[in-house]
Amino acid sequence: MRHIISIIVENKFGVLSRVAGLFSGRGYNIETVAVGPTLDPEVSQMTIVTNGDDQVLEQITKQLNKLIDVIKVVDLTEKEFVERETALIKVAPPPEGRAEVLRTAEIFRARIVDSSPKTSTLQVTGDEKKIAAIIELLKPYGIKDLVRTGKVAIARE
Amino acid sequence: MRHIISIIVENKFGVLSRVAGLFSGRGYNIETVAVGPTLDPEVSQMTIVTNGDDQVLEQITKQLNKLIDVIKVVDLTEKEFVERETALIKVAPPPEGRAEVLRTAEIFRARIVDSSPKTSTLQVTGDEKKIAAIIELLKPYGIKDLVRTGKVAIARE
Repeated sequence: MRHIISIIVENKFGVLSRVAGLFSGRGYNIETVAVGPTLDPEVSQMTIVTNGDDQVLEQITKQLNKLIDVIKVVDLTEKEFVERETALIKVAPPPEGRAEVLRTAEIFRARIVDSSPKTSTLQVTGDEKKIAAIIELLKPYGIKDLVRTGKVAIARE
Repeated sequence: MRHIISIIVENKFGVLSRVAGLFSGRGYNIETVAVGPTLDPEVSQMTIVTNGDDQVLEQITKQLNKLIDVIKVVDLTEKEFVERETALIKVAPPPEGRAEVLRTAEIFRARIVDSSPKTSTLQVTGDEKKIAAIIELLKPYGIKDLVRTGKVAIARE
């Protein structure tokens, strides 16, 4: 099953490596990772999206809780949550495709963040389905570069 | 100096742990990390933001290039690039602060992605300065939860 796990960690050397090592050591693949600061400069927050056996994940969660630099582990999968990621997509459409790229950007509320005679770079934020859909629509226009943040999620109230 | 490094890797167990381990093994701190899929399901892309000595980073880059699962390492710092991250910010303002939260959201082109009688959750995408500015403005209204994707960057044309 797919899980979204939020881990609060002390902002210290090697935490990311140790956390990631716990997953890979058990043959558990990580789909996306996002690590960023919190309001406390000593503390970082990681969001990890994984897919795999629930029992193995339970073991990993227990091990994570034992790591000295791990403050808190929350499996958001059991809750209602909002999930978002951002993609930057650079396309190099032929001249006759440029209008369609702009139209696609509008539909997806994407913003053009860079533009050159031959390329346009779109910034789009949404859930997994939205990002997948815009990528699919832009593919015929020549995706030249694509970078995606990992997913982040926050519990609904 | 601050560096933004893009690393293309084979999507295999343990790559993230090995890459992160190279940084921490040299006492080099990672500020943010974003790992996501590419158009090729076998390949992932990592964006790492670090701060530290240029020479040490050069050594790390060399070591990264030697890792069997690393396909490509690009230091974007030397180029012109667009940098973005996304934050989800849950605030619990007092009743008299709610209008101001909505106004702040509007100014920053943030979107309300969840709303309850006592809380609002904002989604905002931008560069580091923009994210820092909106967080600062929302602090007085009671930030209850905050998650941030790592930064991603794409070269300008």
